[in-house]
Amino acid sequence: MSHLDNDSFLRALLREPTPRTPIWLMRQAGRYLPEYRETRKRAGSFLALCKTPALACEVTLQPLARFDLDAAILFSDILTVPDAMGLGLCFAEGEGPKFERPLTREWEIRNLAAPDPCLELRYVMDAVAEIRRALGGSVPLIGFAGSPWTLACYMVEGGASADYHKVKTLAYTRPDLMHHILAVTTQAVTAYLNAQIESGAQAVMVFDSWGGALSEAGYQTFSLAYLRQIAAGLTREREGRRVPRIAFAKGGGLWLEALATSGFDALGLDWTMDIGRARALVGDRVALQGNLDPAVLFAPPEVVAAEAGRVLDAFGPHPGHVFNLGHGISQHTPPESVAALVEAVHTHRQK
Amino acid sequence: MSHLDNDSFLRALLREPTPRTPIWLMRQAGRYLPEYRETRKRAGSFLALCKTPALACEVTLQPLARFDLDAAILFSDILTVPDAMGLGLCFAEGEGPKFERPLTREWEIRNLAAPDPCLELRYVMDAVAEIRRALGGSVPLIGFAGSPWTLACYMVEGGASADYHKVKTLAYTRPDLMHHILAVTTQAVTAYLNAQIESGAQAVMVFDSWGGALSEAGYQTFSLAYLRQIAAGLTREREGRRVPRIAFAKGGGLWLEALATSGFDALGLDWTMDIGRARALVGDRVALQGNLDPAVLFAPPEVVAAEAGRVLDAFGPHPGHVFNLGHGISQHTPPESVAALVEAVHTHRQK
Repeated sequence: MSHLDNDSFLRALLREPTPRTPIWLMRQAGRYLPEYRETRKRAGSFLALCKTPALACEVTLQPLARFDLDAAILFSDILTVPDAMGLGLCFAEGEGPKFERPLTREWEIRNLAAPDPCLELRYVMDAVAEIRRALGGSVPLIGFAGSPWTLACYMVEGGASADYHKVKTLAYTRPDLMHHILAVTTQAVTAYLNAQIESGAQAVMVFDSWGGALSEAGYQTFSLAYLRQIAAGLTREREGRRVPRIAFAKGGGLWLEALATSGFDALGLDWTMDIGRARALVGDRVALQGNLDPAVLFAPPEVVAAEAGRVLDAFGPHPGHVFNLGHGISQHTPPESVAALVEAVHTHRQK
Repeated sequence: MSHLDNDSFLRALLREPTPRTPIWLMRQAGRYLPEYRETRKRAGSFLALCKTPALACEVTLQPLARFDLDAAILFSDILTVPDAMGLGLCFAEGEGPKFERPLTREWEIRNLAAPDPCLELRYVMDAVAEIRRALGGSVPLIGFAGSPWTLACYMVEGGASADYHKVKTLAYTRPDLMHHILAVTTQAVTAYLNAQIESGAQAVMVFDSWGGALSEAGYQTFSLAYLRQIAAGLTREREGRRVPRIAFAKGGGLWLEALATSGFDALGLDWTMDIGRARALVGDRVALQGNLDPAVLFAPPEVVAAEAGRVLDAFGPHPGHVFNLGHGISQHTPPESVAALVEAVHTHRQK
């Protein structure tokens, strides 16, 4: 087994006891950190930052230099996969991501093929390997990908969408084409995550950021079915250690029980559901990761500590909790709030 | 008791049997109708349309002329109340609503006062009275307002918000000021809805469009507590008939059981939760209104009919269902889809 100074994150994901509740934060390497903004400027663009392994490694490590976090997460973007499928990812200044060639015609959908992650996404694998070396066994490295449904939303809409007009029209009108996109993307995501594991990722997480836009039946059909396939296709062990899989379904509180049987070791929980209630629903089937409202970090340190304590107390004195925010950290967050949060979580005593 | 040709909407809200499931659609008078766009153009602006009773009446009736709907809803906007509190509502072309004077300073919050609905919101009461006359007892008229939390979000943010940065900072940092805004707004909303009832509204609905942005504890404290106060303060009977109250909590599926005991007769359900599961959770405590994904209306008529049938079958052969979309109808909806939907709901036979 490869050496790890601190494996409590991996243990908690497998519901094994840990000396204290581990913590990391979604988007912990990001714009709220001045050193990130400096590197981002030097890179020239967000995409250049993602595509230059040395710089991706640099920003991945920045939050760990400041805060006593229990895991690192690869700095990248979920849209690298459709980009590698030829859709042409671009970021206009001050706007969200866009695709130059979204899927609009049937032949474009029929021509879709999963990329070879070791060729078209080589830069990600190089970043993973470089970060692993740089971490030197201090904390584990998390790899990640977008869920097929979430990626398909971007691929069909061409960018973020308020009402999912195009992708839902496709789903309700031509479910055959929708399922084709999802099947190819599932194959791509599975191969991509396995290549990240091969390159050194010690846990993997699938972000279903837009699953919450679906109806319950739609979620089962267009998202959950493919998440199941991914979980079943992931490499289970590497370097003599289990590689835990996490699924994060933003807005998925209603489907938590279904998600708990989908093959993932842990579920990410957004901040809308009480984590004690969530634990009661999922029982011993999965660990939970979450779920502080990221907006709490706009408040003074004593409020941050009190609200973090509420989450910890709600989960209770059981194994299987990884502390996190319920969503990515906001760019408006004062770094001092993160310091207060990490301190509060690590020193918390269960009531 | 005042005469009504078709009272099945009111009956269903009180869980009384009806010959068929009544249907109306949130935002049924709106941009998807060419005749609406024509009147809107004539009015000059959206606000002028809201503030001119004759025109508000005209657009309220437009969908009823086309479709066999079982209720009319006042054409207005939830932000008329903060506008009447002096915040200065405006709509820039192609953008959402904005306030010229959002609540940013403590003294502005302390100075907040509930408007007199019969003075500052006279134009709404005039519209309600005019629509009632024009309806001539054909179907009931629904009045509405925004929930205190949802209005407070707009009042503090100054418009729509992606991350609720300002309002959540206030809620976590100065809960005393947040509760002051909510208390005054609750008083304003209660008086406003009662004035609508006095002017002729036969059912009232509170839209908690942004409640889903809160944590479970935050929802209890900042939204549900005030919804309860509103329900308790509403006029119960008018013209010899019960005036049913509906609460619609977008993204509120997780809190459905708490909402079911908050004093409302019916709960609006967005499209993310299976309505059969929702009915099992709320039991006989409330009626349910919903919950077709509005995006289904982008599909061909046979898909619309099939998906509407799924919702009806999921609810089952019980009293207490008002068919609706899970959210406001999209401006991209073909009117033919609405015709197909109304037909499908009215002719559906329970499996």
